[in-house]
Amino acid sequence: MKPESLVFDAYGTLFDVHAVVQRCESYWPGHGAKVSQLWRAKQLEWTWQRSLMRRYVPFSRVTRDALGYACETLGLALDESRFSALMDEYLGLDAYPDVPGTLEKLLAGGHKLAILTNGSPDMIDPLVRNRGMQRLFAAVLSVDELKIFKPAPEVYELASRRLGAAPGEVGFVSSNCWDALGAKSFGFRVWWINRGGAPVDRLGFQPDGILSGLGELPAALAP
Amino acid sequence: MKPESLVFDAYGTLFDVHAVVQRCESYWPGHGAKVSQLWRAKQLEWTWQRSLMRRYVPFSRVTRDALGYACETLGLALDESRFSALMDEYLGLDAYPDVPGTLEKLLAGGHKLAILTNGSPDMIDPLVRNRGMQRLFAAVLSVDELKIFKPAPEVYELASRRLGAAPGEVGFVSSNCWDALGAKSFGFRVWWINRGGAPVDRLGFQPDGILSGLGELPAALAP
Repeated sequence: MKPESLVFDAYGTLFDVHAVVQRCESYWPGHGAKVSQLWRAKQLEWTWQRSLMRRYVPFSRVTRDALGYACETLGLALDESRFSALMDEYLGLDAYPDVPGTLEKLLAGGHKLAILTNGSPDMIDPLVRNRGMQRLFAAVLSVDELKIFKPAPEVYELASRRLGAAPGEVGFVSSNCWDALGAKSFGFRVWWINRGGAPVDRLGFQPDGILSGLGELPAALAP
Repeated sequence: MKPESLVFDAYGTLFDVHAVVQRCESYWPGHGAKVSQLWRAKQLEWTWQRSLMRRYVPFSRVTRDALGYACETLGLALDESRFSALMDEYLGLDAYPDVPGTLEKLLAGGHKLAILTNGSPDMIDPLVRNRGMQRLFAAVLSVDELKIFKPAPEVYELASRRLGAAPGEVGFVSSNCWDALGAKSFGFRVWWINRGGAPVDRLGFQPDGILSGLGELPAALAP
């Protein structure tokens, strides 16, 4: 099998956002799951709505806005120090345990690796640096330069262009089903990391493969 | 105050979708709220995601897909007769009690009224007819002719164009905050019907007014 570009989503795919949930729970015992669910839901909704409204702002801003909204909705106090500490969690997220080994294996197999994320450079660049993962990636690409969020096709086109690979020669990996299907709609070969055993979103496309963790990817790519 | 065009969202703004929740509960006792929440969440998400992917399908299709997904996720049996009965509920929804009187009052005050909805004609036209409300509206406009969903600005532009009114001369009323703010971003004057007392979505705009029901609209419009 010839070397192929592999493009990864970041949050929830390579990096485990559970630390954020834990910190929410430590601040608001019994409400941590609710805060982080509403925070995440609004964070995503607003990326889609702002993209459609053509009112892009960086993901770091959307993320801050969504945290404030979640606490306001639930009537939970959010002072400046908690706010900063929660946002800072995003800069130091752990990779899932199987991520470093899997990426090394893929690199050794001749694949070119990249990240394609909604995250703005002020969020994703420090995270990749803090985890010492820069050398693994040929490119860390953010939608920020396009001013529109996933799953707009121009986002996936950016990765194809930067990697110098036709869409059909790019493999894309995401734990967000709608992201995987947006990439499929553009023309990538896609693997959905379905850790929670959810059904496939009904968006008119199917992933090429469904994996329960990133560690299964090398075998899935084998001819 | 001179006559002004007033444009209304349909589902949840003029028409009460609670009957759908009740029927879900009658089919799956103890799970009705969960089914209808997930159904609604996916219905909306997919309108945004499909719009960004440029993979529009009519709202009736999105609605059916989301119902199937919700039941699959929750492990609830959904046979053809329940499926049809739930979809049919959308064609016979009740208007909120204060809607007919309020619309009559606005008409008598010289306003031109219209509906602007994500709903495809196969859903919204029978509903308006079944409720005998056609004569109240100068236009019942669906995003279907544009093949993109709210809150894309071209949707609000459609209403402005069809009513022959500049954006600043159009009043827009929705119970969905993001819809109200999408209309505001386009240039309409907007009233958000906030029946649940939620915070304003943080999308960079504020509604011109927040009402707890449609009955408050005539007084809000008074000079």
